Amino acid sequence: MLKKNFLMSPGPSKVPESVMLEMAQPVFHHRTPQYQEIFADVTAKLKQVFRTKNDVFVFTSSGTGAMEASVTSFLSAGDTVLTIDMGKFSQRFDLIAKAYGINTKKIDVEWGKAVDPSVVEAALAEDPSIKAVYSTLTETSTGVVVDLKALGAVVAKTSAILVADAISGLGADKIETDEWGVDVVVAGSQKALMLPPGLAFMSVSEKAYQLAENSSIPAFYFDLSRSKKALDKNDTPFTPAITLVIGLQKSLDMILSEGMEEVWARHEKLAVATRAAVKAIGLSILSDSPSNAVSAVQFPEGVDGGKFAKIIRDEKGVTMAGGQDHLKGKIFRIAHMGYCNQYDMVVGLAAVEEVLYELNFKFDKGAALKAFQETYLS
Amino acid sequence: MLKKNFLMSPGPSKVPESVMLEMAQPVFHHRTPQYQEIFADVTAKLKQVFRTKNDVFVFTSSGTGAMEASVTSFLSAGDTVLTIDMGKFSQRFDLIAKAYGINTKKIDVEWGKAVDPSVVEAALAEDPSIKAVYSTLTETSTGVVVDLKALGAVVAKTSAILVADAISGLGADKIETDEWGVDVVVAGSQKALMLPPGLAFMSVSEKAYQLAENSSIPAFYFDLSRSKKALDKNDTPFTPAITLVIGLQKSLDMILSEGMEEVWARHEKLAVATRAAVKAIGLSILSDSPSNAVSAVQFPEGVDGGKFAKIIRDEKGVTMAGGQDHLKGKIFRIAHMGYCNQYDMVVGLAAVEEVLYELNFKFDKGAALKAFQETYLS
Repeated sequence: MLKKNFLMSPGPSKVPESVMLEMAQPVFHHRTPQYQEIFADVTAKLKQVFRTKNDVFVFTSSGTGAMEASVTSFLSAGDTVLTIDMGKFSQRFDLIAKAYGINTKKIDVEWGKAVDPSVVEAALAEDPSIKAVYSTLTETSTGVVVDLKALGAVVAKTSAILVADAISGLGADKIETDEWGVDVVVAGSQKALMLPPGLAFMSVSEKAYQLAENSSIPAFYFDLSRSKKALDKNDTPFTPAITLVIGLQKSLDMILSEGMEEVWARHEKLAVATRAAVKAIGLSILSDSPSNAVSAVQFPEGVDGGKFAKIIRDEKGVTMAGGQDHLKGKIFRIAHMGYCNQYDMVVGLAAVEEVLYELNFKFDKGAALKAFQETYLS
Repeated sequence: MLKKNFLMSPGPSKVPESVMLEMAQPVFHHRTPQYQEIFADVTAKLKQVFRTKNDVFVFTSSGTGAMEASVTSFLSAGDTVLTIDMGKFSQRFDLIAKAYGINTKKIDVEWGKAVDPSVVEAALAEDPSIKAVYSTLTETSTGVVVDLKALGAVVAKTSAILVADAISGLGADKIETDEWGVDVVVAGSQKALMLPPGLAFMSVSEKAYQLAENSSIPAFYFDLSRSKKALDKNDTPFTPAITLVIGLQKSLDMILSEGMEEVWARHEKLAVATRAAVKAIGLSILSDSPSNAVSAVQFPEGVDGGKFAKIIRDEKGVTMAGGQDHLKGKIFRIAHMGYCNQYDMVVGLAAVEEVLYELNFKFDKGAALKAFQETYLS
């Protein structure tokens, strides 16, 4: 068959053709009124997507750069923070904090589950010196969404700040940054914001700014005060990835003209139908708190996960993601984030069925597609 | 008149249309053999442009990110380094080092001049504890090129490493990283490498790796050992700016098929003719060690630099750069870097003449263009 390429991985994710072509326009200089107007528009629109009145910073980096900024901007070596290991990315906060000489109290959660807010509450009660709590909104490695609203309520009662990695969640799983009291939200361009990788974002609350005043971790490229001084003049301290910012303006326009509630509802509808689809052919979902951005699907008994990943990508042209660390070979992750509608999911599910069939897994052919339609259309 | 936009600033600089369109191709995943093959090819080609057998790292950041890495990767707080202030960008090394608790001995050089290697030699002799010398290859703010070959010879005799910011120089002003003994070379995508901003590069010599072993400055996003571990597997530790890497492959192909010697010769020919052109209408060059990447041209008596900059950009559509800090309003900087040939320079010079004419500066109309042609064609 003619092979077409479909990107269904949880980052990088599909970028609208119109955004790609917008970014192919001739480059222009960033120290110009023309660019500043675009940048002001982009930061204003980012706030609408973040659901915040707080400052939102734009970094030229991968999402990890902003995660680093969310550690180094607010803390000092010797401080204590609470981290949660519920997957590859929440774990990363712990690694970053340790790299900067910060003491971490780590809550270990079985991968596939979300942290219980009461456990966080107890940990905070036990150690009032905890300066910050680090969590993911969406744990991309397991397809888990965390109850940030509950975490926000718990953390708000303390002097600690709540920092959330919403890199793959923002624009897919609901977040109400201000209403829920999430002090720092980190995001990236290559997920539900429908752009290629290269930009990262960080929102900062007043409570977080106050904590930042006592921070003594050195920084330059990600330095908060340098970034803040520039942002107040509608600028970045260093040359931004101009083409990506141009593209971002267009993708934010698309998101906001659809409307945040509608965007969240679309993701939920696709996620629910996708989960019903894979269950209908005997597969199961890893997460017991499933995200609307990405589904982590457990391979059934007897199916070689490594072979599945290779065949679906190299032979079928459909890129999904496998499992990381101890989940390698045990799950595949199908994204329903960003520039994605029901027809994309039908393609992905058709490919899943086809590869499982070729791997001699016994199931009712077409049952996944049928279940998707039944769920989606009801 | 119909306004067309010409980008003649020393970064961002013009990107070939074919590169822009290459980057507009559908995004694909970076943890794939398809991407790894491209990344291996890109790093191999970068080495040819850097003229080095050393590792060349690719960061998703502005050039300043790699400058930061060139400080934090090799040093510890309390170390002493030699910095040189000969412009905005060489100065930045001093700021970065201080931000990380490093003692700096700073050589102040009048902006527009290049550091005298014998001054560096004397400073190194006076303080054998100096661990590193930081210089620019091309000081973008003044259009100065530094004699890195001579600096390399001086530093090689000591235990210090030589670190060069070649962000705007690489691919325009000649550099022989290995032959000249430049231990660490930092570069960026948006200058003579003919790409939009968003990628930065750093080459690391064996001597620099040895120094890095004792470094105790914490790092995560720019952490050298993490980057090295990934590079050895043909990878980056964090999601790269995929589209820019795709574009880089194409722009490096263009550069290498022209040939490095030919690329340098082209830049020299354009720079020499541009300098002759502006001199022919009574303007002067700031630098007494002029770069082939960018010319810093002093405004003649009575011409309002601020007005010039605004008119040439907003009315004529030709973007050049002004002066920074105390050079603001005193110079304009015209780039002849990257995707640039004689016809681009003729456009830029025609616009310079036109705006000077409108600002009532008296000169022999067309003399700049004539001098350009006379010099270029001889």
